Amino acid sequence: MKSEGCVVGIDIGGTNSSVGFVDYHGTILCETVLPTQADQPATILLSRLCDVIEKLRSSIPSQVTLAGIGIGAPNANYLHGTVENPPNLNWGTSVNLVKLFQQRYDLPVAVTNDANAAAIGELLFGGARRMKHAIVITLGTGLGSGIIVNGELLYGAGGFAGELGHTVVDPNGRDCACGKQGCLETYVSATGLCRTVAELLAQRREPSRLRDVAYNQLTSKQIYEAACKNDPVALAAFDATARILGMKLADAVAHTSPEAIFLSGGLAAAGDLLITPTRRYFEDFLFTPYKGKIKLLRSGLPEGRGAVLGAAALAWHEVSFDSAQPPFVP
Amino acid sequence: MKSEGCVVGIDIGGTNSSVGFVDYHGTILCETVLPTQADQPATILLSRLCDVIEKLRSSIPSQVTLAGIGIGAPNANYLHGTVENPPNLNWGTSVNLVKLFQQRYDLPVAVTNDANAAAIGELLFGGARRMKHAIVITLGTGLGSGIIVNGELLYGAGGFAGELGHTVVDPNGRDCACGKQGCLETYVSATGLCRTVAELLAQRREPSRLRDVAYNQLTSKQIYEAACKNDPVALAAFDATARILGMKLADAVAHTSPEAIFLSGGLAAAGDLLITPTRRYFEDFLFTPYKGKIKLLRSGLPEGRGAVLGAAALAWHEVSFDSAQPPFVP
Repeated sequence: MKSEGCVVGIDIGGTNSSVGFVDYHGTILCETVLPTQADQPATILLSRLCDVIEKLRSSIPSQVTLAGIGIGAPNANYLHGTVENPPNLNWGTSVNLVKLFQQRYDLPVAVTNDANAAAIGELLFGGARRMKHAIVITLGTGLGSGIIVNGELLYGAGGFAGELGHTVVDPNGRDCACGKQGCLETYVSATGLCRTVAELLAQRREPSRLRDVAYNQLTSKQIYEAACKNDPVALAAFDATARILGMKLADAVAHTSPEAIFLSGGLAAAGDLLITPTRRYFEDFLFTPYKGKIKLLRSGLPEGRGAVLGAAALAWHEVSFDSAQPPFVP
Repeated sequence: MKSEGCVVGIDIGGTNSSVGFVDYHGTILCETVLPTQADQPATILLSRLCDVIEKLRSSIPSQVTLAGIGIGAPNANYLHGTVENPPNLNWGTSVNLVKLFQQRYDLPVAVTNDANAAAIGELLFGGARRMKHAIVITLGTGLGSGIIVNGELLYGAGGFAGELGHTVVDPNGRDCACGKQGCLETYVSATGLCRTVAELLAQRREPSRLRDVAYNQLTSKQIYEAACKNDPVALAAFDATARILGMKLADAVAHTSPEAIFLSGGLAAAGDLLITPTRRYFEDFLFTPYKGKIKLLRSGLPEGRGAVLGAAALAWHEVSFDSAQPPFVP
């Protein structure tokens, strides 16, 4: 039966949400993207997601049974099944997504934050298969992370383990949306890269095409394109980003001693421009017993599919859990 | 039978080593301290430790059976059973202590580094009993740490998880014995406190009794005593130490989300002078979802007994493990 089953993976973002039917090999059978309509309450999105699920269900062979639903969402708490104070959604203080979905579907349902979903996806379908200890970093607008320990995602005492984006780079550093100063994600993220460029434009004198772009118009994609054309400020911004990322990843190793660290998300798509210098700084900052032993890799999931595959992996994990089977390994 | 059993806990230090017979309640039945003689090879210490064990064994009732041996030692690798390149012992590159002890005793034997032993001790006999997630920090000459995850000590992929002493406070900061710069233990430890005093003596102008002590003669105990008498430099040194410790403990929380953090070791004995300001800075640096939820506590083990009790706890853990019993909870 299991070989004919599939799960629904849902990724809820501030702008768009994705829904995919995924089998236990991590193959996406069908998928669709819909606008999140972030200003609407959660129940409206829920109805629209259920409509999409039913539509997709009618497109797959009838013998393929639906085994569970997994959701990745900002500020999601796996232990409570809730999304709490999501920064870009007009949902109020707390929405119990698991309960809402279970009113419609008599299936295992689970929710976790997008970075944790990415980590479970890496563990079940990506580069971390058969690894016991790994860290997954998502580099998008912010910096998210999920930590794998003993073959399981780590939630910790409060359900919020793996918030590396809010570890401190410089206690007197950049203002963070979280209210603190100098958090890692104010330096290492798409927005962090833009802030670094602004700082370098002030500090240095070289000509740069980026001097003609207003701060509010500047994107990480422009910086990437400028760096590809050897723009000195853009190159320096990637190098500065890599140095801070390498340093903080070395710190992360000193906590959980992973076998590998995976970089995923939009900024990781900058590829060698970011990952090559990050590897060099990372090795420099590693404590001696770890040197040369920790792999720093790009995500093993297909580009742009990490979020849906991660949510699907979470669903498969819950299915194994609910049926008291041993943790599912494809 | 179990209620009549005991284990041997051995703490190997650079100057002295301690041996204790400990029952499953964490009661030390008898103990002794011997000079380590760090310039001698490991086999010499092993013979002397075995002599001490036999002597102590003859002093306890004959119906108390010996169930296992646990050892805490610098640079110990639990997964390999070895002590590797110990900084203060003339033991060469690698000594397999587990093998050496098992040539003498047909018992479960395990070795781990002193901070990991302290963490297991806290988990079995101290303040972390019944906790699933906790961090134990030992503040001595250096800064050691052990991380509890899902009720077990975390070793990670290489056996070296929990080396928080070598996370980075300032990449351009103080030289560390490990070869890096700005490691946490160069600021937060007995020697780190002395270095901070030297820095403050240069920076500030207030009179201080510490201005009359040569750097090589300065001890953390003197700084503690000066602070108790309101010496402004000593007080500022404790405050600076607390700020850095609070900041890095907040970072540690963002990795594994513990229920509590325990401070043990010589410097933690400074008590309120260190722990009160550390708590304040720690709360300031915590990411919002953790604020007000993580306890920062002194070790629940009797002062000066953490090392032997930790080594004994490791032995009890191995005994449960070897006999395929569920993890042992006193």
